[in-house]
Amino acid sequence: MTFDAPRFIRDVFQPESFAIIGASDDPTRIGGRPLAYTRERFAGPIYPVNPTRETVQGLPAYASLADIPGPVDFVLIAVPAARVEHAVRDCAAKGVRCCLIFSSGFAEVGDMAAQARLLDIARPAGLRILGPNCLGLFDAAHGFFPTFTATLDRGLPDGGHVGVVCQSGAYGSHIAYLNRLRGMGVGRMLTTGNESDISVAEGIHALAHDEATGCILAYAEGVRDGPAFREALEAARQNRKPVAIMKVGRSEIGAAAAASHTASLAGEDAVFDAILRQHGAFRARTTDDLIDIAVATRPRIYPTGRRLGIVTISGGAGVLMADAAADHGMAVPPMPQAAQDALRAALPFATPVNPVDVTAQVFNDLPLIRTNMDLMLGQGGYDSIVAFFTSLAGSPSLSGPLRDALAGSLQDHPEALIALSIIAPPAVVADYESAGFIVFEDPSRAVAALAALSDFGAAFARPPLTADVPAAADRLPPGALSEHAAKAVLSAAGLPVLPEALAPDATAAVAAAEGMGYPVVLKVVSAQITHKTEIGGVALNLGDAEAVAMAADGILSRARAAHPDADIDGLLVAPMAPAGVEMILGIQRDPVFGPVVMCGLGGIFAEVLRDVTFRAAPFDLAEAQRMIGELKGQAVLDGVRGRPGGDRAALAQALVALSRFAAAHAEDLETCDINPFVLHDSGGVALDAVILGAG
Amino acid sequence: MTFDAPRFIRDVFQPESFAIIGASDDPTRIGGRPLAYTRERFAGPIYPVNPTRETVQGLPAYASLADIPGPVDFVLIAVPAARVEHAVRDCAAKGVRCCLIFSSGFAEVGDMAAQARLLDIARPAGLRILGPNCLGLFDAAHGFFPTFTATLDRGLPDGGHVGVVCQSGAYGSHIAYLNRLRGMGVGRMLTTGNESDISVAEGIHALAHDEATGCILAYAEGVRDGPAFREALEAARQNRKPVAIMKVGRSEIGAAAAASHTASLAGEDAVFDAILRQHGAFRARTTDDLIDIAVATRPRIYPTGRRLGIVTISGGAGVLMADAAADHGMAVPPMPQAAQDALRAALPFATPVNPVDVTAQVFNDLPLIRTNMDLMLGQGGYDSIVAFFTSLAGSPSLSGPLRDALAGSLQDHPEALIALSIIAPPAVVADYESAGFIVFEDPSRAVAALAALSDFGAAFARPPLTADVPAAADRLPPGALSEHAAKAVLSAAGLPVLPEALAPDATAAVAAAEGMGYPVVLKVVSAQITHKTEIGGVALNLGDAEAVAMAADGILSRARAAHPDADIDGLLVAPMAPAGVEMILGIQRDPVFGPVVMCGLGGIFAEVLRDVTFRAAPFDLAEAQRMIGELKGQAVLDGVRGRPGGDRAALAQALVALSRFAAAHAEDLETCDINPFVLHDSGGVALDAVILGAG
Repeated sequence: MTFDAPRFIRDVFQPESFAIIGASDDPTRIGGRPLAYTRERFAGPIYPVNPTRETVQGLPAYASLADIPGPVDFVLIAVPAARVEHAVRDCAAKGVRCCLIFSSGFAEVGDMAAQARLLDIARPAGLRILGPNCLGLFDAAHGFFPTFTATLDRGLPDGGHVGVVCQSGAYGSHIAYLNRLRGMGVGRMLTTGNESDISVAEGIHALAHDEATGCILAYAEGVRDGPAFREALEAARQNRKPVAIMKVGRSEIGAAAAASHTASLAGEDAVFDAILRQHGAFRARTTDDLIDIAVATRPRIYPTGRRLGIVTISGGAGVLMADAAADHGMAVPPMPQAAQDALRAALPFATPVNPVDVTAQVFNDLPLIRTNMDLMLGQGGYDSIVAFFTSLAGSPSLSGPLRDALAGSLQDHPEALIALSIIAPPAVVADYESAGFIVFEDPSRAVAALAALSDFGAAFARPPLTADVPAAADRLPPGALSEHAAKAVLSAAGLPVLPEALAPDATAAVAAAEGMGYPVVLKVVSAQITHKTEIGGVALNLGDAEAVAMAADGILSRARAAHPDADIDGLLVAPMAPAGVEMILGIQRDPVFGPVVMCGLGGIFAEVLRDVTFRAAPFDLAEAQRMIGELKGQAVLDGVRGRPGGDRAALAQALVALSRFAAAHAEDLETCDINPFVLHDSGGVALDAVILGAG
Repeated sequence: MTFDAPRFIRDVFQPESFAIIGASDDPTRIGGRPLAYTRERFAGPIYPVNPTRETVQGLPAYASLADIPGPVDFVLIAVPAARVEHAVRDCAAKGVRCCLIFSSGFAEVGDMAAQARLLDIARPAGLRILGPNCLGLFDAAHGFFPTFTATLDRGLPDGGHVGVVCQSGAYGSHIAYLNRLRGMGVGRMLTTGNESDISVAEGIHALAHDEATGCILAYAEGVRDGPAFREALEAARQNRKPVAIMKVGRSEIGAAAAASHTASLAGEDAVFDAILRQHGAFRARTTDDLIDIAVATRPRIYPTGRRLGIVTISGGAGVLMADAAADHGMAVPPMPQAAQDALRAALPFATPVNPVDVTAQVFNDLPLIRTNMDLMLGQGGYDSIVAFFTSLAGSPSLSGPLRDALAGSLQDHPEALIALSIIAPPAVVADYESAGFIVFEDPSRAVAALAALSDFGAAFARPPLTADVPAAADRLPPGALSEHAAKAVLSAAGLPVLPEALAPDATAAVAAAEGMGYPVVLKVVSAQITHKTEIGGVALNLGDAEAVAMAADGILSRARAAHPDADIDGLLVAPMAPAGVEMILGIQRDPVFGPVVMCGLGGIFAEVLRDVTFRAAPFDLAEAQRMIGELKGQAVLDGVRGRPGGDRAALAQALVALSRFAAAHAEDLETCDINPFVLHDSGGVALDAVILGAG
């Protein structure tokens, strides 16, 4: 289903007429606030519906929706839960496009049926539902404020580059208000409450197509429709709209609290994290993170590189910012020698390397700060600049001239990205921001924000995600495949496996081994025996025919003894693989996002440290390489203390093949584990594999 | 040397008389600001020294220090570098107690000699030096402001519970100013610049003994005198003064920048981190961290437990705070059933578990919020509470009644620690803070701050660090000990080693093996051969006399071939130890902090993931257990996937013994590596050891 963004914006954010069922004459009540706010600026007709009054807040009131003479695009329902269904029925009958339900008492208190009935009424009529249990929305440019958040008592928002999309109404208005206090205009806020119909994903998707929106701040407790959520993120990425998301329920404690709070299906958190990385969205860990993204994205400049130039009037703060750069994967390369020489000539008191310490002396001669900035921007080769000027930049006498000096540089380098770490009153901060600078108090947060902009830049530069899902050759049978069958399937999918033979008995095993050359490995083959090692079903490093014959008999008798009812297909005979770096690869079917591929270092890395990473399938080679780059223990692949390393390219290719296999079998594959996948200096091989078909 | 805190405070912060060499008539110049600021409130005499003027800023000027009739306690030197030495000489002659040198042009530009000369003059006269290259200090209660920070133009500080001690002047005044903007009073600021004499450690130590100081915020690029720094932190801990430290140069980039910036000896960063943990100081990663500690420590309440109660009017924010609690090692236990029942009865609309979602409805009946808080404080068993009330708590109509309702609870539970996550104007925030609450905007930062308070509480509750350094039995010889000698030394120090015999030849090795029982291990013994395995100098798992004899001959001949000049003592014969969990233990002599003990999981954990932790020696069993608890891979000790675990108690005892050995040999031990130290289900044993004597 293709998402129709213009239609969504028209129906949900920008209707031409507005009615309120349960409109209150008291502008401080839940049914009164939206009317009081909206009537201030809304261009279209507003119809209060209240059968007990002639007028509501001075507007003529209607006894019912049906009594309203003209068409009504959008209806706000602010009546007790018991009367909501009737109101929704009226909306459907009236041909309303969207109804917003403030009322609580539905899925969030366990009444799924009542909520489902609303949808049953709305869907056939083409009526969208926002909520129930929802705090509402606003569209500042449209003058439309159907929300009861009290933060609007302190002035209606005038719009701006920030779009807020939140499941939680209280948290949504919290961050919208914080943005406004920080001077970041919020153009639209959408809170989705119980998400019976309209979801956070749709809100993101709509704003991704909106020119006025410069960044999207979102909050989710869980995502129900994984593909729609991914499409929304992908639309934002392709339209160069940064998305920052607070997804709560990260911890076990948090997840328990989330489950008791809303009727949400929370996908496994590591998978959610992977989805955000795959689509280039920023995962906020704190509320400050969200606000910082709003601040940093105002210039809409997204560098693809990570070379940071640091200007400071305090050597100490310079070191602090260099530390922060290292924390966030930013490079702090020195100025080129020629630029250093030029800087030393112009500012003899400065340390001209990087960090460039211009000292507080520079404030005695402000044109020098322009000289410095011009040199760094013109010759430094930096992707972004952070400058620590502390409270000096906010002083009444210096702030104007400093801003002008810096703004001159920015005019000559319009694509330059400059963050200032300063302390200044809000009006002075606003002046710097209007001139194109990003302003933070905390120097570490400034650096973190620049790093996030480079993350966005890199993600925006990547090609569209592949939509090409390969067709499966054959459907997988339900249940467990034998190791031999699993490897055959994976081999057909392009994963490297060793040549191996299935031998029904000891004699055949010896014959197969003679053909391969020694040493060999023997393993029992049975779909019913998944823990082969534990029952003595594996023999390694067999050096001659006699050893193979003895081992074969032993394995078969032990297997029959341990699993008398198992169908034993025989013995797998394979060459003994040389040692290498053991990886664990796998596929799991996420209930929300479908098949995801896992990659980790084997053994304790995966088990103790959970040093594994995920991606939704399918993906390309570059994405596979990014996955590998996320493993904390990846240095093992380079070889440690004389041990051989592992072939990253072979690993990446295996991951891509596995991801295409996963996508092709989205319907009929439950899980796949390749453990170990052994990497050598050149190449790699799946030594063991378990595949479980769905159904 | 015992640190004399009252004397330091008198000499440095609270002199009775004050002279300024280089005093300027212009109150905006570096030599003019300190005079302008200090004369506003300072009770004692102030003497401008300026040979070219009759008066300075209206005060009678003196041509030289010697011309001043009475005694002078404190002298500020604000003259070019070339004239500083002369000024210090004048101070020494006048009997001044402390001189503060603003001037730059000393160690920070490489002129160590000039800086050393100042000390040579000052020391014999008992004159302390602050600086050079220093921005100065202030003591608000004493009305003493010898600093040129322009932030004081916006009003002199009125004092408060925060003490700021910073090497960097610009950063020091940055955070002092941020504290003031945040409404946190700063009682004292000390910046130390080049630290020719007075150090950050002394500043911390002095404030640790000051009743008015409630928390100490410090910044350091490096620490020169490790023991003095540790004594300062320990004094703060024993006096229940929280210390938060920003130590820059964490990263390699940062460390390089630090080295080019000041003449500091930066200790290895991981060691610095360990020292802070050992003394219960908080390591700030960002400037916000520092300010947050100032905000959180105002009530001076430090719980020893980590049970967090969460109150919220938004379910989503509740989950968010539960996530943050998990991030910071806080527990979020449910309310006891009786308290849940009582709460459900009183607030039927609330979710009464934990997080307790009181919903925005509670604002319709504020006494209920008191009921809720009383139940959580009285019956919840929580160590601290965080409450998310967003902008509702800041609204003009609600803020007063809400504060009164909450303050009633606090009066009944004066030891309760309650943090509010709210959005409110500064004056309203100040009201909540005066009533005893901790106030943050960001709910995650509120939780992080409460966790830090619990960290402080746990550290404050620990006994004083042991000062009992054991005497060494014998001095270690310089250079490498043989493995046999190293193990004998460690065994004498109380570390478990296997019984082993030194055999000069194959015959003796067989005799020793027969006495021990098979299997055994053989290793070549030579102080000159440290990489035994690489030259074939080790044989494992020898099962009988014949195997031992063959292996012994082979090892000796390979060792002689590889190291013809080595003195070979013979062969070490030892029982073959069973497999277990391999740890790596060690001692290194830190140039700043002396002997430190390392503990890590062996192999790739230590090498690839740097999953190791340090402590300065000596330390006790509880500290050793905390060390082990810091290892990310510690789950290996509990056994992973059927593998045997390791005996934590035996490991902790070994670490304590190693720490006492390290302390006893602080002078004559360079390094010690025990790799591996193998842990079994019960007990552990050092299987290999390298000791390098100092000198």
